[in-house]
Amino acid sequence: MEFQLDKAKEVLRRTPATLNALLGDLPNDWVLSNEGPDTWSPYDVVGHLIEGEETDWIPRARIILEQGQARPFDRFDRFAMFEKSKGKSLLELLATFGQLRGESLRQLDELNLTPELLQKRGTHPVLGVVTLSQLLSAWVVHDLGHIRQIVRVMANQYGDAVGPWTAFLSILTDKPSS
Amino acid sequence: MEFQLDKAKEVLRRTPATLNALLGDLPNDWVLSNEGPDTWSPYDVVGHLIEGEETDWIPRARIILEQGQARPFDRFDRFAMFEKSKGKSLLELLATFGQLRGESLRQLDELNLTPELLQKRGTHPVLGVVTLSQLLSAWVVHDLGHIRQIVRVMANQYGDAVGPWTAFLSILTDKPSS
Repeated sequence: MEFQLDKAKEVLRRTPATLNALLGDLPNDWVLSNEGPDTWSPYDVVGHLIEGEETDWIPRARIILEQGQARPFDRFDRFAMFEKSKGKSLLELLATFGQLRGESLRQLDELNLTPELLQKRGTHPVLGVVTLSQLLSAWVVHDLGHIRQIVRVMANQYGDAVGPWTAFLSILTDKPSS
Repeated sequence: MEFQLDKAKEVLRRTPATLNALLGDLPNDWVLSNEGPDTWSPYDVVGHLIEGEETDWIPRARIILEQGQARPFDRFDRFAMFEKSKGKSLLELLATFGQLRGESLRQLDELNLTPELLQKRGTHPVLGVVTLSQLLSAWVVHDLGHIRQIVRVMANQYGDAVGPWTAFLSILTDKPSS
């Protein structure tokens, strides 16, 4: 599937509602459990998605459009949420994410991206040269990847409880990863 | 995490709303694309979840409670939806799944399951002896596993579009599986 801005936005705009439906008011056993040391809980993942809205996707799109390849993106702090989420409830984080995502999509519209602009290039600090359309595609896949992570973390809480069914439930034999 | 009926139900009752939020009214490019021959699209997965409500979870719970180990479960037809979903829109399938899941949860409540009943045993045609609590745990994990499948199938449509970002997006290097 080729990147198309309107179809990418259809996924991006659904993520807050998907996370609200999946996680809103869920008991803490599901929300705060992770997969062991140095892994993330669903709560942590939502904080990470907030960080992405604030520092990653739209800011990087602007760097590409305004400064091109000359100015590498800032590195994305994948652990910032451990500090920033402190003291906040999951419902607060979900509301914040929904607001920020709505704002990101409004800003995306205001960029008035054309097919030509989508081919503009920037410099990722690790990956090197990337295009704006690759950045926006990665935003979509990043959302989907973290929904996958959340459901895998939840499923793994029942790794023992399912007994012999482990053999049929491949989600339980995925390795932890973001 | 130990199986607890009330906490399992909290996940089970959220799945229809999660799928509605993720998939409802999404363009067909996202909904009908799969991961290649003999793999499922998000549309196929919703049909499979419907089949589970109709023939698998609650019917098997009843077999355990009424007939115990003596009467093995019927095999679950993992491909029935290819025929049964024909001609139906995704929105119809999502609505059907929501109705059936609501009915399943009402029936689950009517079973008045006690800790003793949850330890009752049945016979899975392949896995052998299983308990009712393992069956209900597997139901939860089965939901989560298919949400994971849906987002992976969607993400893979952008496998090329993300360019160098493939290296950071582990959802793109998962092997197709249910």
